[in-house]
Amino acid sequence: MPDTRFFKSAGPFKVSALAELSSSTIADQHFVDKDIIDVAPIESAGSDQVSFLDNPLYVGAFSKSNAGVCVVHPDKASHAPEGMVLLLSETPYLSYAKIASAFYPELDSIDKTADTAFVHPTAVIGKKSTIKPGVVIGARAEIGSQCEIGANCVIGPGVILGDQCKIGPAVSIQYALIGDRVRIFAGARIGEAGFGFASSESGHFTVPQLGRVIIGDETEIGANTTIDRGSAADTKIGKGCRIDNLVQIGHNVILGNGCIVVAQVGISGSTELDDFVVVGGQVGFTGHLKIGKGVQIAAQSGVMNDLPAGEKYSGSPAVPMRQWMQQAAMLRSIGRKKVRKDG
Amino acid sequence: MPDTRFFKSAGPFKVSALAELSSSTIADQHFVDKDIIDVAPIESAGSDQVSFLDNPLYVGAFSKSNAGVCVVHPDKASHAPEGMVLLLSETPYLSYAKIASAFYPELDSIDKTADTAFVHPTAVIGKKSTIKPGVVIGARAEIGSQCEIGANCVIGPGVILGDQCKIGPAVSIQYALIGDRVRIFAGARIGEAGFGFASSESGHFTVPQLGRVIIGDETEIGANTTIDRGSAADTKIGKGCRIDNLVQIGHNVILGNGCIVVAQVGISGSTELDDFVVVGGQVGFTGHLKIGKGVQIAAQSGVMNDLPAGEKYSGSPAVPMRQWMQQAAMLRSIGRKKVRKDG
Amino acid sequence: MPDTRFFKSAGPFKVSALAELSSSTIADQHFVDKDIIDVAPIESAGSDQVSFLDNPLYVGAFSKSNAGVCVVHPDKASHAPEGMVLLLSETPYLSYAKIASAFYPELDSIDKTADTAFVHPTAVIGKKSTIKPGVVIGARAEIGSQCEIGANCVIGPGVILGDQCKIGPAVSIQYALIGDRVRIFAGARIGEAGFGFASSESGHFTVPQLGRVIIGDETEIGANTTIDRGSAADTKIGKGCRIDNLVQIGHNVILGNGCIVVAQVGISGSTELDDFVVVGGQVGFTGHLKIGKGVQIAAQSGVMNDLPAGEKYSGSPAVPMRQWMQQAAMLRSIGRKKVRKDG
Repeated sequence: MPDTRFFKSAGPFKVSALAELSSSTIADQHFVDKDIIDVAPIESAGSDQVSFLDNPLYVGAFSKSNAGVCVVHPDKASHAPEGMVLLLSETPYLSYAKIASAFYPELDSIDKTADTAFVHPTAVIGKKSTIKPGVVIGARAEIGSQCEIGANCVIGPGVILGDQCKIGPAVSIQYALIGDRVRIFAGARIGEAGFGFASSESGHFTVPQLGRVIIGDETEIGANTTIDRGSAADTKIGKGCRIDNLVQIGHNVILGNGCIVVAQVGISGSTELDDFVVVGGQVGFTGHLKIGKGVQIAAQSGVMNDLPAGEKYSGSPAVPMRQWMQQAAMLRSIGRKKVRKDG
Repeated sequence: MPDTRFFKSAGPFKVSALAELSSSTIADQHFVDKDIIDVAPIESAGSDQVSFLDNPLYVGAFSKSNAGVCVVHPDKASHAPEGMVLLLSETPYLSYAKIASAFYPELDSIDKTADTAFVHPTAVIGKKSTIKPGVVIGARAEIGSQCEIGANCVIGPGVILGDQCKIGPAVSIQYALIGDRVRIFAGARIGEAGFGFASSESGHFTVPQLGRVIIGDETEIGANTTIDRGSAADTKIGKGCRIDNLVQIGHNVILGNGCIVVAQVGISGSTELDDFVVVGGQVGFTGHLKIGKGVQIAAQSGVMNDLPAGEKYSGSPAVPMRQWMQQAAMLRSIGRKKVRKDG
Repeated sequence: MPDTRFFKSAGPFKVSALAELSSSTIADQHFVDKDIIDVAPIESAGSDQVSFLDNPLYVGAFSKSNAGVCVVHPDKASHAPEGMVLLLSETPYLSYAKIASAFYPELDSIDKTADTAFVHPTAVIGKKSTIKPGVVIGARAEIGSQCEIGANCVIGPGVILGDQCKIGPAVSIQYALIGDRVRIFAGARIGEAGFGFASSESGHFTVPQLGRVIIGDETEIGANTTIDRGSAADTKIGKGCRIDNLVQIGHNVILGNGCIVVAQVGISGSTELDDFVVVGGQVGFTGHLKIGKGVQIAAQSGVMNDLPAGEKYSGSPAVPMRQWMQQAAMLRSIGRKKVRKDG
């Protein structure tokens, strides 16, 4: 169970309450009144804790688990050990997420600005927002209500944050308009000047970067990720996106709603991803591309062309997944043949 | 046009003034006295704004644009819509950059050290330099004149910055000598110890890193980029380089003048790039290489050998561009054939 | 020799003392009393300085060097120039590392908390620890003795650091238990929430991340590297690891002891590396893998499968090194043939 140095459980909850808040069904109604005190991983959960099975890799651990309660898809229920109470759900990971959020809700922020924070006199801070020590907030910035601004953050002049945003330590945000319930993790750099210069024989002449970064509601941005502001138009990130750590997003890039971008991806300037695009880790995009709705791109791919909606791609240069699997099989076979012949 | 929350235009300018400062020619001298109030992207510019056409992808947008004035290469002038005033230039992007810089000049820094900054008594700050809140400047550091040191920066003991440097928020600089007019963006880490250790059966023994980082005039370094100091000799970045975000530069690396390094590139220790080398995003270099003058390396390449001057390379391992295109064509054809046969 | 702006030599040392502390043998006992004032690179060392030869690339520089003393493997001794005193060692780089550490020892930290640091009243700071300006330390955090916490660091509530840790500027550490003699370089982000969410048609629902980061003694973590905390179990880094800059380590990842992870590597959630795994730059791992003891993985590889102990791998997808070399040779030959035929 979570270390009480860091986490404070809001439990216990009755099994019936967990079923209700997670939209799952108790396999045996006999156990509705059982008290569950915490969440725990499947391998280490005990009889008064709740766990979940989602990834099929963990069916073995599930069948040996001592968890008192487990959220599981009905298809996997037969693997459960004797005596385990099952919460049946078509979406067990989502159900678990809701249970874990009930045990460990976001704490309410409190109306406090630390003595060692610097808030410009013309900046506006909403109600019940917490400004941690060492924060620097520039002129005319506007922070919504119930926000938490982590220690040593820098919020530039004119920046607007919506309500209930949670900004980690040491983040910097400039030239940006941020929606509600946005989370930005430690060290992210929002709104720096893009990589823009005009090259000639006398060197590289920097082009003023005059756009903004606009981030939609409920989007989350990972640690040490960088999102440059637009050069003239804006860089735009839609609503409900999940962007991982150490991602680079260039100037004028547009992401639709619900996009998932895994760690260390690089998206070059002016490329546009439609809604619900999923990008694996370390993928690179050249600039000025259009990636269709729901496209999925495998890790380490290199995308150099527009990609139509709904397909899966892999490789560098990226090709449709099925074609890439043929390429990979061919390479594997040649390598193996050679090794066998020589070896 | 740029959001006035963040940007303040120095306009209006007469068309004649824009032509002069951008070394371009007004196609129809009739319009020299027209007042232009701002820059804007080609798609959204209005009749009192100036835009530009550089990337051929945007010829269509150009031909439908409502921009009052547009900088364009003479070859593209025929695509202009009726009534648009043209500023003809052999280098339209450079001309636009100069116009945008006239509308949005770097603001003069002012002689001010924030109350919440910590400046060691033995450090020296030049005239008209701005030290923002939360900055920490170590013993014997020397900051030139007209510099701006962003909020929560850390400048280590002994570091020297030239004049008119602009350092973004939350940057750290240690063991470094920095030239004039250098710009470093948020969160960059200059001068950390390199990745040096001697491994034996009893583990990894850290080797003291006793060199410096030396950065030439007018070089720009991206957000969250890391440049390690030398192990014994120095890590050196030449003049007028452009280094993008999240780049890793190892100890003892040497970059010549005018190099361009796109985001997420990694350059291993002691590799040397001659002048005007261009490196695409996510490229990796092994250590101790010599890359010739003007070499261009495509995105995601893996460079494992010295590369002679003036050529273009691609692939991992990197090969001459033409050879790489043959490899890629071969892979594509095999993949496609297979898919067709099986599909 | 190191710039005295930044480094202060503890020398001179007699040659005999250098031999003893580096476990090497003086080739000619005549010179035991010679005073050596400093270390220096092989190309620039003078007659009262000590250098080393390790990488065979530098044999030429060695044979022309003016270094008074040089640490060298007995096999290379014959290349030495006339008059150079040789310190013979089976492990010349390790011997040099010990000599350089004698000249430039870690300075003792002093018992001082800067006025502009914020230390929560319930936090505990060990003896002789230095807390630099702008540091923010949360409730109930415990910092060991003789630690140095760099300027503008953020140490979250409940975090524990062992003794003699050295934390660079602007690091953030949350939800973490850190061993003794750990070094963390500037801007690293330890303990942020992992990339965990349950996706459904109504969007991505964030899963609370309830684990910790646990880091073993003597491990070093590079600048701007990110290590996410576990989702339920912990993220664990063993003892004596060396992790370079801009590395991403996902939630629940486990690294054994003595692992080496070069810059810009990405390790996805729940992947486990056994002891002494070596990972080249920009390698990516998918999640839930098991990588055996002593595995070595070449730069830019993409690892998608479990890898058994003791082997070398390369490529994306990664295959055994020998097989990869056949693949690369095949690609090279086809590309070359085509170019020759067409060219």
